[in-house]
Amino acid sequence: MLEYADIVIIGGSAAGLSAAITARRHNPDKSIAMVRRDEQTPIPCGIPYIYGTVGSVEKNILPTAPLDAHNVELIIAEVTSINRENKSIVTDKGELHYDKLILGTGSKAIMPPFPGIDLKGVVGIDKNNGQLEMIKGYVEAAKDVVIIGGGFIGIEFADEINKLEGKTATVVEMQSHCLSLAYDDEFCKVMEDHVSTRGVNLKTGVKVTALEGTDSVEAVALENGERIKADLVIMGIGARPITHLAAECGLEIGPTKSIAVDKTQRTADPHIFAAGDCAEKVSFFDGSPCGLKLASIATLEGRIAAANLYGVVRANSGTLGVWSTAVGGLALATAGLTEREAKQKGYNVVAATAAGPNRHPGCMPGMTPTTVKLVFEKKRGTLLGGQVMGDTTAGEIVNIISACIMGNMDAQDIACFQVGTHPALTASPVAYHLVTAAELAIKDM
Amino acid sequence: MLEYADIVIIGGSAAGLSAAITARRHNPDKSIAMVRRDEQTPIPCGIPYIYGTVGSVEKNILPTAPLDAHNVELIIAEVTSINRENKSIVTDKGELHYDKLILGTGSKAIMPPFPGIDLKGVVGIDKNNGQLEMIKGYVEAAKDVVIIGGGFIGIEFADEINKLEGKTATVVEMQSHCLSLAYDDEFCKVMEDHVSTRGVNLKTGVKVTALEGTDSVEAVALENGERIKADLVIMGIGARPITHLAAECGLEIGPTKSIAVDKTQRTADPHIFAAGDCAEKVSFFDGSPCGLKLASIATLEGRIAAANLYGVVRANSGTLGVWSTAVGGLALATAGLTEREAKQKGYNVVAATAAGPNRHPGCMPGMTPTTVKLVFEKKRGTLLGGQVMGDTTAGEIVNIISACIMGNMDAQDIACFQVGTHPALTASPVAYHLVTAAELAIKDM
Repeated sequence: MLEYADIVIIGGSAAGLSAAITARRHNPDKSIAMVRRDEQTPIPCGIPYIYGTVGSVEKNILPTAPLDAHNVELIIAEVTSINRENKSIVTDKGELHYDKLILGTGSKAIMPPFPGIDLKGVVGIDKNNGQLEMIKGYVEAAKDVVIIGGGFIGIEFADEINKLEGKTATVVEMQSHCLSLAYDDEFCKVMEDHVSTRGVNLKTGVKVTALEGTDSVEAVALENGERIKADLVIMGIGARPITHLAAECGLEIGPTKSIAVDKTQRTADPHIFAAGDCAEKVSFFDGSPCGLKLASIATLEGRIAAANLYGVVRANSGTLGVWSTAVGGLALATAGLTEREAKQKGYNVVAATAAGPNRHPGCMPGMTPTTVKLVFEKKRGTLLGGQVMGDTTAGEIVNIISACIMGNMDAQDIACFQVGTHPALTASPVAYHLVTAAELAIKDM
Repeated sequence: MLEYADIVIIGGSAAGLSAAITARRHNPDKSIAMVRRDEQTPIPCGIPYIYGTVGSVEKNILPTAPLDAHNVELIIAEVTSINRENKSIVTDKGELHYDKLILGTGSKAIMPPFPGIDLKGVVGIDKNNGQLEMIKGYVEAAKDVVIIGGGFIGIEFADEINKLEGKTATVVEMQSHCLSLAYDDEFCKVMEDHVSTRGVNLKTGVKVTALEGTDSVEAVALENGERIKADLVIMGIGARPITHLAAECGLEIGPTKSIAVDKTQRTADPHIFAAGDCAEKVSFFDGSPCGLKLASIATLEGRIAAANLYGVVRANSGTLGVWSTAVGGLALATAGLTEREAKQKGYNVVAATAAGPNRHPGCMPGMTPTTVKLVFEKKRGTLLGGQVMGDTTAGEIVNIISACIMGNMDAQDIACFQVGTHPALTASPVAYHLVTAAELAIKDM
């Protein structure tokens, strides 16, 4: 095994991969090594689709070609410790010295202490192919699948499994609505109706009390006394950061139990950076601790960390939270704060919603009713967040909203948005959703 | 006819309609009247699709429902003059007094002084239904159609006509590439190849010398001696602003022969504003005169003018130029300056292009190869423009670029873009085109 690399990255998922590529772009002459446990790493956001649309674990692999193309040495090894004094990491294949170290150790599915959590057929969605293959075996054999947690992963898993012949999929969500971390109720309801119509069973506003069975799981018991038959239970209630390597070498662990970093993604050790699910995050809006874990955030932090290794050029402005979900042609997307979240944070809020076709005239092929909701701070008019509902373009419209928030735009700026439109591609310029929502909000400011 | 309205708008296309809606939003208690010549007004950008995809003039009408919904009185009349001293307009139906007047008189197709320009079967694309119905008659009867001008209107018209049974469509463009106002050569070539493969004949880098025929047009003669058979010739080389009402009442006409306005869309007369194709524009980048005429720009200017009638709340930051074109599943979109244009303006330029799938993994349904090119000013890294090529989402990706330019983002900001991604909707967060293009550009700065 290699004994030294200028830049060593632990972890090969979203944060690690984007850190490796970025490190090379900014450091053409440094040696770079990525150390990860598995030969192959799944594409994290693609995981639900393994069980339906994509069809196999092998078709959802993060390509290693970018590592070769960027001259990054890939070392398959299990890291057992970090020796900060020596500036080395110890692995099951030997010791590797570094000048700069990036931790992209990721996260692990939360397995709550329900009675029966250790039964066979109760699985967490961990980002390694062994686990995902095991889940695949379970899915193929199962008839009644219960997904605990109605976030985007839960909803996407449920829909993929529901599409398979002869299986039932039930989602149990303790909040009053699925997806409520990402969307205001009126958006959640549309997606709930949509997946229900497609055949997914939803149980919302109810807690799980136990997983029942003898050897294998047989049912999920709810606090309302209901008992849902289940031969497979998938936990989709979130993930906890993997931080033992960092903690054991004395790096600080922060309020969300993640590795503490500054705006440059650097830990208290000037030679060690952290990025992705394992790293602490703060809100873009008020700097409060933020527990969001998304591959897109991980890649951003990987790019920030890697660009800053030899001289700071980038700062993390705090996590906005931009993501989307799609089920059978209906896409929902969110950026920044929902109205509910903004109010919880104490903002004086004005929200406005614009709905209409995403083609002009509306008889153009592919027209899909589209809705955009924008949330503004009332006094200054600053954009705090936005939600989009429509077809595939919703996934990019939300990135327009992200750009507007990053650019600190206010409602007047958005009312004056220089939009590009086309009959076959977008809404009419007279009724472009983003602009209309801003105009409607201005009336209430 | 009405004798007085607080706010009078002349013109009922993109600028006028958006001005009317905005005027109402900002002035709940004012009386508002729109005066236009025709009962019905076509959706300007939808015009090419009348002749194929949409199928009729009647299906491409700007709805009047928004006028009713916003309590705007619609007056069908021809305006013959403006009397600034009386604060009135004179029409063929009588005189109408105003407190504030917005001119949205639009533009008219340029008919260049070619020999034969007055032959039957030589038509300009004017935004009125009579003319569009006449063109429809010609299209139905024609066998060989020549479109002069290979901008987006020319390309879209040609493709729609080419799809009709038994007709040939030829585009003649004097520049070396079609669409070169909007795109750098490598993008133009892709669309040229695409429409050629679909059966459209392209003649680029060649000028028209004459339109030939006795009563009706029979051929288009080119400067290289070629003679293209034609029983219909459509002029698509641009439009000239309609300004006679403004000029005759003494308002200043500016360098692009449009009505001179300040940043608030106000003319030298404090009670008269102008917006859309008839109004002068300056470049967002350097304030130089800008001749772009797009419905999206017109609606923006309409919104600015109408919001500023009773107290300035908005300024026009100058025209960015954001638009797109789509032919048979391939969409191209542009925002700001092309590399060519930026160099012509004297910028020291760094451009970078990122290409790759717009799904992750690439086997997700609907995957379309997508390309994003970004153009930056080298010294400060400021984003000057971007071009996108892909599927329908290109039409919204370009609006992300627009937001980034409006927000004065530089390459580092875009490398740190907080992007939302989804397997079924967007590129991977590891290889999101916008971010990758920024990263590649940074290497060359």
